[in-house]
Amino acid sequence: MPATSDPRSAREVFRGKLLRVEVESWPVGEREVVRHPGACAVVALTTDGDVLLVRQMREAIRQVVLEIPAGIFDIDGEDAGTCAVRELLEETGHRAMKLEHLARVYTSPGFTDERIELFLAEAEPATDASGEDSVEVVRMPFDEALVMVKNGQIQDLKTMAGLLLARDRT
Amino acid sequence: MPATSDPRSAREVFRGKLLRVEVESWPVGEREVVRHPGACAVVALTTDGDVLLVRQMREAIRQVVLEIPAGIFDIDGEDAGTCAVRELLEETGHRAMKLEHLARVYTSPGFTDERIELFLAEAEPATDASGEDSVEVVRMPFDEALVMVKNGQIQDLKTMAGLLLARDRT
Repeated sequence: MPATSDPRSAREVFRGKLLRVEVESWPVGEREVVRHPGACAVVALTTDGDVLLVRQMREAIRQVVLEIPAGIFDIDGEDAGTCAVRELLEETGHRAMKLEHLARVYTSPGFTDERIELFLAEAEPATDASGEDSVEVVRMPFDEALVMVKNGQIQDLKTMAGLLLARDRT
Repeated sequence: MPATSDPRSAREVFRGKLLRVEVESWPVGEREVVRHPGACAVVALTTDGDVLLVRQMREAIRQVVLEIPAGIFDIDGEDAGTCAVRELLEETGHRAMKLEHLARVYTSPGFTDERIELFLAEAEPATDASGEDSVEVVRMPFDEALVMVKNGQIQDLKTMAGLLLARDRT
């Protein structure tokens, strides 16, 4: 690895349950870096051509947000595809019948190492699913979700990119 | 505003030059929130149908990243469009001749309030431009950039969404 791939020094300034924040010293100056465990997210389409979204409160922006199902890599050793299948079931009560990797994305590499593994899935209802209380499942025609991306009603970046990428695969 | 739109309490655990981190107490539990000033970003197309990208080291992920030009809202009172025009000039030496708002996006509302205002611009070279030393300008056919989004060579989320949204406007 080249010498520039690591900071001269780093000091941890916060260690939470989810995040760790470090101030790193680089030749170009200091960088405030938020370490995040990463996440999986899934564009789940039903056989009817609907997409499964979830609506939930996102405290950080004080808003209820419409998103594709997603979850943090918080189970040791779980691979990204398994995470996507699990989160889809937990959040929407649907099972992924087919799963395809869409993209690895970095949400905001200027300050965080968070990466999301985006998937495309064919989903069908699971009979034994209970669902999470904190999220509301929103099922709508895929084309309608694309319109919401274009007219600004969907503003969550992973959801926008996921839906737009999925359009070219379907 | 409903009672759920503000936390019960919040304590600041880090205040840096760019970021501020708070641990907020909500009825559903604690949230670690990274406060970010927000940013502008611009998909800049030349009259030849090229797009102007920049390649720069992103220390947070220890990688050189190919992105659309972008900048943080760090000038008091500057509006988003002015920010986009300024960043385009500073990073690529190009002037925005026409500017259109593409979208407001939240990069990762699960833990940060960072929002990016995305623009589409027609760009032409400015004669008096100097350019930033820390970024390398990469000019390529717009369609080639779209291919790089689809084959995973472009992984920066705002860049992916920006290019895919711009495709439908051009």
